[in-house]
Amino acid sequence: MTKPNTIDASITPIGSLEVLSQFEVSKLKQAGENGLYELFRRCVLAILNTGSDSDNAKTILQNYPDFRIDIVQQDRGIRLNLYNAPADAFVDGAMITSTREMVFAALRDIVWTESERKNDLSEQASGSAITDYVFHFLRNAKMLLPGQQPNLVVCWGGHSINEVEYEYTKEVGHELGLRRLDICTGCGPGAMKGPMKGATISHAKQRILNARYIGLTEPAIITAEAPNPIVNDLAILPDIEKRLEAFVRLGHGIIIFPGGPGTAEELLYILGILLHPDNKEIPFPLILTGPKEAADYFKQLHEFIAQTLGYQAQQKYKIIVDDPIAAAREMTTGMQLVTDYRRKAADAYHFNWKLHIDPIFQEPFHATHDNMAKLNLHKNAPVHLLAADLRRAFSGIVAGNVKEQGINLIEEKGPFEIHGDPEILQPLDNLLEAFVAQKRMKLPGSAYVPCYKVIA
Amino acid sequence: MTKPNTIDASITPIGSLEVLSQFEVSKLKQAGENGLYELFRRCVLAILNTGSDSDNAKTILQNYPDFRIDIVQQDRGIRLNLYNAPADAFVDGAMITSTREMVFAALRDIVWTESERKNDLSEQASGSAITDYVFHFLRNAKMLLPGQQPNLVVCWGGHSINEVEYEYTKEVGHELGLRRLDICTGCGPGAMKGPMKGATISHAKQRILNARYIGLTEPAIITAEAPNPIVNDLAILPDIEKRLEAFVRLGHGIIIFPGGPGTAEELLYILGILLHPDNKEIPFPLILTGPKEAADYFKQLHEFIAQTLGYQAQQKYKIIVDDPIAAAREMTTGMQLVTDYRRKAADAYHFNWKLHIDPIFQEPFHATHDNMAKLNLHKNAPVHLLAADLRRAFSGIVAGNVKEQGINLIEEKGPFEIHGDPEILQPLDNLLEAFVAQKRMKLPGSAYVPCYKVIA
Amino acid sequence: MTKPNTIDASITPIGSLEVLSQFEVSKLKQAGENGLYELFRRCVLAILNTGSDSDNAKTILQNYPDFRIDIVQQDRGIRLNLYNAPADAFVDGAMITSTREMVFAALRDIVWTESERKNDLSEQASGSAITDYVFHFLRNAKMLLPGQQPNLVVCWGGHSINEVEYEYTKEVGHELGLRRLDICTGCGPGAMKGPMKGATISHAKQRILNARYIGLTEPAIITAEAPNPIVNDLAILPDIEKRLEAFVRLGHGIIIFPGGPGTAEELLYILGILLHPDNKEIPFPLILTGPKEAADYFKQLHEFIAQTLGYQAQQKYKIIVDDPIAAAREMTTGMQLVTDYRRKAADAYHFNWKLHIDPIFQEPFHATHDNMAKLNLHKNAPVHLLAADLRRAFSGIVAGNVKEQGINLIEEKGPFEIHGDPEILQPLDNLLEAFVAQKRMKLPGSAYVPCYKVIA
Amino acid sequence: MTKPNTIDASITPIGSLEVLSQFEVSKLKQAGENGLYELFRRCVLAILNTGSDSDNAKTILQNYPDFRIDIVQQDRGIRLNLYNAPADAFVDGAMITSTREMVFAALRDIVWTESERKNDLSEQASGSAITDYVFHFLRNAKMLLPGQQPNLVVCWGGHSINEVEYEYTKEVGHELGLRRLDICTGCGPGAMKGPMKGATISHAKQRILNARYIGLTEPAIITAEAPNPIVNDLAILPDIEKRLEAFVRLGHGIIIFPGGPGTAEELLYILGILLHPDNKEIPFPLILTGPKEAADYFKQLHEFIAQTLGYQAQQKYKIIVDDPIAAAREMTTGMQLVTDYRRKAADAYHFNWKLHIDPIFQEPFHATHDNMAKLNLHKNAPVHLLAADLRRAFSGIVAGNVKEQGINLIEEKGPFEIHGDPEILQPLDNLLEAFVAQKRMKLPGSAYVPCYKVIA
Repeated sequence: MTKPNTIDASITPIGSLEVLSQFEVSKLKQAGENGLYELFRRCVLAILNTGSDSDNAKTILQNYPDFRIDIVQQDRGIRLNLYNAPADAFVDGAMITSTREMVFAALRDIVWTESERKNDLSEQASGSAITDYVFHFLRNAKMLLPGQQPNLVVCWGGHSINEVEYEYTKEVGHELGLRRLDICTGCGPGAMKGPMKGATISHAKQRILNARYIGLTEPAIITAEAPNPIVNDLAILPDIEKRLEAFVRLGHGIIIFPGGPGTAEELLYILGILLHPDNKEIPFPLILTGPKEAADYFKQLHEFIAQTLGYQAQQKYKIIVDDPIAAAREMTTGMQLVTDYRRKAADAYHFNWKLHIDPIFQEPFHATHDNMAKLNLHKNAPVHLLAADLRRAFSGIVAGNVKEQGINLIEEKGPFEIHGDPEILQPLDNLLEAFVAQKRMKLPGSAYVPCYKVIA
Repeated sequence: MTKPNTIDASITPIGSLEVLSQFEVSKLKQAGENGLYELFRRCVLAILNTGSDSDNAKTILQNYPDFRIDIVQQDRGIRLNLYNAPADAFVDGAMITSTREMVFAALRDIVWTESERKNDLSEQASGSAITDYVFHFLRNAKMLLPGQQPNLVVCWGGHSINEVEYEYTKEVGHELGLRRLDICTGCGPGAMKGPMKGATISHAKQRILNARYIGLTEPAIITAEAPNPIVNDLAILPDIEKRLEAFVRLGHGIIIFPGGPGTAEELLYILGILLHPDNKEIPFPLILTGPKEAADYFKQLHEFIAQTLGYQAQQKYKIIVDDPIAAAREMTTGMQLVTDYRRKAADAYHFNWKLHIDPIFQEPFHATHDNMAKLNLHKNAPVHLLAADLRRAFSGIVAGNVKEQGINLIEEKGPFEIHGDPEILQPLDNLLEAFVAQKRMKLPGSAYVPCYKVIA
Repeated sequence: MTKPNTIDASITPIGSLEVLSQFEVSKLKQAGENGLYELFRRCVLAILNTGSDSDNAKTILQNYPDFRIDIVQQDRGIRLNLYNAPADAFVDGAMITSTREMVFAALRDIVWTESERKNDLSEQASGSAITDYVFHFLRNAKMLLPGQQPNLVVCWGGHSINEVEYEYTKEVGHELGLRRLDICTGCGPGAMKGPMKGATISHAKQRILNARYIGLTEPAIITAEAPNPIVNDLAILPDIEKRLEAFVRLGHGIIIFPGGPGTAEELLYILGILLHPDNKEIPFPLILTGPKEAADYFKQLHEFIAQTLGYQAQQKYKIIVDDPIAAAREMTTGMQLVTDYRRKAADAYHFNWKLHIDPIFQEPFHATHDNMAKLNLHKNAPVHLLAADLRRAFSGIVAGNVKEQGINLIEEKGPFEIHGDPEILQPLDNLLEAFVAQKRMKLPGSAYVPCYKVIA
Repeated sequence: MTKPNTIDASITPIGSLEVLSQFEVSKLKQAGENGLYELFRRCVLAILNTGSDSDNAKTILQNYPDFRIDIVQQDRGIRLNLYNAPADAFVDGAMITSTREMVFAALRDIVWTESERKNDLSEQASGSAITDYVFHFLRNAKMLLPGQQPNLVVCWGGHSINEVEYEYTKEVGHELGLRRLDICTGCGPGAMKGPMKGATISHAKQRILNARYIGLTEPAIITAEAPNPIVNDLAILPDIEKRLEAFVRLGHGIIIFPGGPGTAEELLYILGILLHPDNKEIPFPLILTGPKEAADYFKQLHEFIAQTLGYQAQQKYKIIVDDPIAAAREMTTGMQLVTDYRRKAADAYHFNWKLHIDPIFQEPFHATHDNMAKLNLHKNAPVHLLAADLRRAFSGIVAGNVKEQGINLIEEKGPFEIHGDPEILQPLDNLLEAFVAQKRMKLPGSAYVPCYKVIA
């Protein structure tokens, strides 16, 4: 392998962290140099690789072993000196503006997470404290814009989808943008990039200059899935549960494209919330859509929901196959309902306060053999709690598939065991097998060895 | 007296407090309803009287005895219901925009002062902690704009100056505005209003749309001196010392117009700081200016400085009599030096971090007979400490003259006694007598009974 | 007299004439150097005196006898070199931005008037051609802003009103500005400046940054009445009739303050138009207002209208005495009717196409003894034609009073003779005598010798 | 073929034609309904097909035979009623904003061309009159922005290039956009779209919101090559020569990608101008660039230039193969020279007045057998005149290949005959044969029958 081009550079903040106190700068410097340095370095490296083809964190890290960051304290504020940085992030020696914004967004979020509110948020924190945390996090990231009409569509879906599905996500994004809707995704490739790319073109056609392409990520994911270059508003939430909550509090509607267990996790998360009795009256457009080739996929998912959460859960979403215009129109209609509801309820447009999220969906779930074995997959559980545990099952499988820690656990102790009622486990097993058959478990190229065992 | 017109109204935030968490709203509501309610009510009443002729807090409060505020918590954010509010603050039922902004600025600052950082800031707080506090306070008030060239002129001077002096402050403001400089004052009438009024016209002539008219006040003063209607950026600092620090950290130069003991206090404050050895190299334009009628006044002040702080202190300022253009040009030249210095030093343009302020200038001074008697007015004190105690002497006289608490103390125990070397006390006594003779002690209309005794 | 300070300077366009072809620049240069040079020089001198106290064209011209302008052609565009220009128009060598804008507005209008459309517009031009001319003139001056809601109030009234009346115009302007209305006047002092000054303050209070202060003038007037410094949009129409048409096509409502024969001319102009049968349905708010001291003045004017044009004409306006708020509210209500009407009629907001203006109001009237003697002041004339001739009578008196050419004629041939029915002439004579008594004919300081004889 | 979806709609102006006089509206209506209707209809149909795959004018016109436009005159301005319009140009019944802008740009340009200046511009018009015409045309299209730094790169090249070449044009556009340069092209597909597409992404990365994507076309071309959807500033010049002049007066530098005879025509046009002695000192960056697969193509072109115009002409451009970054850097360097030169020469940034264009390059060339036969392709002609006639030779071949009128002529009378010196004709013949071999003459899919005969 040839050594990639690198560059040394010195940058000052834009977008974030432009006005800091000396105490804050010194805190940043300390935090960035000590405990958080490695995390920060990895995030920055991922950001500097924005737009590169590689989506393997390890490769990136290995390609730039000498990359390092010095945090410099000036009276004026903070300055970062970068050494051996990927040259592609620079034009004639100057860092690309969006990259510079994202680097400081990362620093902002990492340090805020670490120092600002750490004490407020023990793992036992009550639900409303976590919601408050998410609110403050997003406000600190300047993502809460008062007065703007509801128009933010969250797009979920697989990061390794096939070309037909990818083209479809672009078309849906294009139709959303034509209808003046903004996009929020997990900010990586695949279904997270396609809708943004499509919307970029249609926003230009509609002469919309202030469109938002929000990327919400978390430290374990950003290093594997570098933010795509269209993202113009990036936040790195501290964990997967807060990232999920940010999606549903910030977004005004959700579109789910085909994906693997991660996407199933997201669907179960939002269904579990919408099924809560307190949320019965709250309009929340939720659309599952994909190309005609994905019709079977959605049929299977739909059946799985029926068999596990029941027909009531099926009423919370609408499946639209092979019709990007219909999907976008459905979303537009839903947005209007959201707007009307929030106006009547004197609720904010910029944060969905009314939505009740059960603490069970907020608590960080650690995918260990023990925790996986304890999941309560029983027909007689209240439906939103069953959804919560199914969500966790998929979350564990994602970890076992692709996250470093999860892979190590599987290697050491064998596959996770998942227990429960056959009525639940059978459909789960079927769905997972389908994911395997459709190559939705991992990137193509290797035979998939399941990281789980379903034990009815 | 006829009862003034009142109105009931309901307002939501603009400018400040537009994006609040539910927890914050509930905190605001509690704070505003309990301990801080009366303070908030008084501030709002003062703001609703913006532009009225009365500058007597008591009159205002007595005119609207039934005025009250309900703080309402909505999911969307906060709402204020006002009852029996002065009708002049409304146009056809809608509150004037600038008034609405100022009401929420008051709420923002009062609550921030009370709750946000209270614990951080004991009276024993170190100097840098207080500076940090001032920084965060101003940032929270959105007064720190990164990237803007130094152009903010602080104008100090009496609130009850005569017509000739008032006209002169307008002319100076006009010349400053022509040179694209912004204005920051204590935000009341007299020398605090004139420069803003003059600059408004000249900014319009220069087609400057984003000019800043910053008003810095504190709770004890705002109720007596309502913000003039030109102020478009208001902050209510918690005490007089933090307000003074905000002036010198935020402003890039200072112009001092004629005034009474309050103005002398301000002059001694800035001289005390500039005389500190650490600040020797820092450019800080400081201009004393007034109409030709004020020539004697400045001569006397100049002599007082010579006799107390010495000729070295005289080098820190420049007196310009009867020449608004020269004053404005001198300030423009000074601004350029400030800009060059900060660029070289990598210091921020929006906050003067480099300026060293001795803690003695930061500690709140309470004007009691005891504290006044303990002032250390001796020739052999280091010059910046002597300045500090002279500053306190004038501060005490202001309190004894016009502040409610001070007046009560004097009534109870007789005049403050001020001790020290005759070499200091004699010039002080002369200056104070001149203030009396020139009617600079209090608003005209009553014979002045001194609230102090100088005991050599 | 001491020689006033002067300065040499070189300026390039802002606001107007920034993008010119070489052919246009050469045309401008020729026009400005030959026939139009003296006119241009006088206008620029008036503009450079903006804000000065003198309103005597002669004085200004005499004060700066050496002032001259070189028009320089560059590839980039035009450049003006000014020699011996009034120093007050400059700050530290740079021309004040608004003044620079106005200088190029003058050049733009003078040259456009002269060359661009001269051939299109003979004196026999049809009414619609003149309207088209006025439209193109205003569009060329960038005064026609599409899409903006009707909010432009034309304020008419005397240029030499007393202090009480002047204060009143400021108060009305303040109330109009509070209601987000913009101001258009003849751009000189007195009732033309007061409303703009009042609105400037209230627009600032309402945080309106894009307020319009439009000044419409004509070459014979601008040199006597320099544009006040608040005007931010200046146009120099070619003659008094086109200036009047510009007022009523551009403005959405009119307020008339006390004034002399010029104001009476304006009132008769708008009444003559509104009385035309074709305009019956068109809403056009027209308010006469002044302080309580002006009550008699309005009573007399009201009677004069009754006696000459009849009670029907009285229905076209509303007199409001001593109540700025009521006047402003009435205007706000009227604006709403205008908006509704134009929306329904698919008429433009930026130009009142629907208003029919009889050619008799468009033809330039030259005040000669012959033309004055031929006026048709008879009771049996159609009311809008009687209004037209009464308008001319007052126009002639204005010319005889203050315009250079008119004064010369009177000196040479004695007063104008005005013939007609006694039923018309008697009220006219009474009104004129009242103007004399109230010193509304000329600036105070000299005994008024009438320039007219009413011959019943 | 299924009938395409159509829609009826009614639109009012944005971007252009928002403020029209009634006379202008009526003129537009007449012009649009009579002589110009068919032209306008074809242009609008092309614009409504923006982004469609078809680039065959005939197909578009045949697909929408019932499409028609009614021009409606309202007091407010103009309105267009469209019947049976392509549904793809609309979103849920509302026309896409950019399309609406382009429709009114077409109306603006067609009518301006026809009526506004027709009399000024006979075919015998002098060179400077034509330049003036082009200036006024572009100013009327609001393309001349004063004060903006030179940054507009004209990109020329084939409309039917291969995939490798297309990708390369995107990469170059991306690098230009990263360096904050704007793009101007002929606004069709291929090398006219690629650079815009690449720059769109990089402008977004650099957070540039006001980037310009200028499309310059002419009536005979727009119907065949619909403007690509990225164009945000469209002008339809009246003929090919004025379009070429607009390119070189408006743009600050030119990049030429591979293409066929049309591209050769453009290269000869700019070389002919740059070779004129008067233009010797004027910096004008001219870069020929393409992927490594195009190396031979450029070599051949380079040799052709040497053999016909000489090595001197080769000094006017730089060939850069397979290096988008180098091409963009070269352009950035060139821009700096242009900026410096114009500043020193007091020349405008927005229009290249200094460039001398010989009338021979301005006169419209009609490709007839007679005109083609009369071309003066002789070695002893002055080099810029030889360039002019070579330009015409290629222009004729383009017409014979693809323009309706040219094709008809060839069918009727056989191929054009081109006469001249063998020293010129031999290289010409070689180049043309290479174009044939490389399929650059026409869209692939048909055998190419030459429309010309080279007769040495």
